[in-house]
Amino acid sequence: MTDYMLWNHEIVERKAENAMVSFEDRGYQFGDGVYEVIRIYDGKLHALDWHLDRLFYSMEQLAIRAPFSRSEIKQLLKQLTETNKFTADGKLYLQVTRGMQPRDHVYMEELDAIFYATVDCFDQPVEMWEKGVKVTLQEDIRWLRCDIKSLNLLGNVLARTKAQRNGYHEPLFHRDGIVRECGASNFYMIKDGVIHTHPTNNYILGGITRKKVLMFAEELAIPVEEREITVEELQEADECFLTATPLEIVPITQIDHQPIDHNQIGKITKRLQQYYRKRVYDFLE
Amino acid sequence: MTDYMLWNHEIVERKAENAMVSFEDRGYQFGDGVYEVIRIYDGKLHALDWHLDRLFYSMEQLAIRAPFSRSEIKQLLKQLTETNKFTADGKLYLQVTRGMQPRDHVYMEELDAIFYATVDCFDQPVEMWEKGVKVTLQEDIRWLRCDIKSLNLLGNVLARTKAQRNGYHEPLFHRDGIVRECGASNFYMIKDGVIHTHPTNNYILGGITRKKVLMFAEELAIPVEEREITVEELQEADECFLTATPLEIVPITQIDHQPIDHNQIGKITKRLQQYYRKRVYDFLE
Repeated sequence: MTDYMLWNHEIVERKAENAMVSFEDRGYQFGDGVYEVIRIYDGKLHALDWHLDRLFYSMEQLAIRAPFSRSEIKQLLKQLTETNKFTADGKLYLQVTRGMQPRDHVYMEELDAIFYATVDCFDQPVEMWEKGVKVTLQEDIRWLRCDIKSLNLLGNVLARTKAQRNGYHEPLFHRDGIVRECGASNFYMIKDGVIHTHPTNNYILGGITRKKVLMFAEELAIPVEEREITVEELQEADECFLTATPLEIVPITQIDHQPIDHNQIGKITKRLQQYYRKRVYDFLE
Repeated sequence: MTDYMLWNHEIVERKAENAMVSFEDRGYQFGDGVYEVIRIYDGKLHALDWHLDRLFYSMEQLAIRAPFSRSEIKQLLKQLTETNKFTADGKLYLQVTRGMQPRDHVYMEELDAIFYATVDCFDQPVEMWEKGVKVTLQEDIRWLRCDIKSLNLLGNVLARTKAQRNGYHEPLFHRDGIVRECGASNFYMIKDGVIHTHPTNNYILGGITRKKVLMFAEELAIPVEEREITVEELQEADECFLTATPLEIVPITQIDHQPIDHNQIGKITKRLQQYYRKRVYDFLE
């Protein structure tokens, strides 16, 4: 664990008593807040601007008053890694809640949002990259604003816990017969050399890694179709993979009892993984 | 504001520093918890056993380890009203979160749940009873486990805030063309002398006041049909009302621009209100 954390506008020692929350923080009573998980490579923040774009989008959608400007939070987050002398691979967690108010669903307009951030080591998940993971289909019971990276995460909590207790890495959510995304990652199916993935709308979170993968696919001249994939189509998949900020590109070798590409890692997935590993260092600040 | 609150197993002075939460409380990072709002009449807790039934149901559905037995929490809640010398009308808020853990969607099995309760004055909403309220139809975007009284309340927060900013008391949620419930209350339509209301399933919260209203309707020999009501049917409603623990029975006199029963309070609604007011004192402990 690192020694310092960001607590509102200050870097403080990472001790319980320095970062205590009131029971009237709306984050605690309603999950009324948003967050980001930012990858750190060699102590440097990855794709920071894209994460901040999404954070500001999430706050705007919930009408949470941003407690910082973009340049201010950038400076605070960098100060956080520096104060921790953090030079390893890791991840940064940043959370913003709407603020404090006597309990009422209806929020007051002028609340001061409360935020904090921590950094922790996170090693490259090499085994997952090389062996792939299994996922399990689950009905998507989450709310219909999955495009907001909010703290209302019970749907994900229940689904991921169930999947992992049953020996799967992730749930693969489907709703109305359409494959949406995984419990904490975006999903892709490759068929006849084309990458298929769900369009960004209210049913999925627009992943930062997803954005990069689509950019890299273009650079590699691999065609991409953003469209709704039915559960039935999974039967015909040549390759499948998932992407997430901490994990990058992870091959899916099995969906429930169905092996994908004979439980092997597909060629296009491997090519994307290798390219991603090279290009990822171009997004540091 | 009252002077004392329940903080885990102790009655403490109601001061911020006595009830601080860690940022690693899963309630704060995931909304991973449940709650109850219990009505107090003349300082006495109302329908306590029914509320505890629902609380234990909610915890069980989320696999939260109950941090108290039923008799223990009963005793603690009574101690709370007594220590506060609370003899007025009010409401009690009780919240339980899963516990503390380094951030991970997947929850550990053996966490110690964290809970607290507060009591506050709440007067009888006489004006609402007599004048009724307006509601506004909104698409229900909440998750599909509305039967669990969880802290994932952003859907309610957004909908109620929007409704109230637009001059309505409550949103009236519809999903798939079916009227579900309001933002924090159950919904009823009366047509040809019959009370129609949504069946209890994963689309609505099984209200404690709902349960009483159905019981009282039976005592009054007013027929009830628990069934799905379509949005179109609202056009033909003779009377409408909502129920919630703090508000009891509140007539709905308008749905968006449509007046209900000429903006008057219907006869059956009034009869139920009066009967409720009499019978409510039979449920105190």
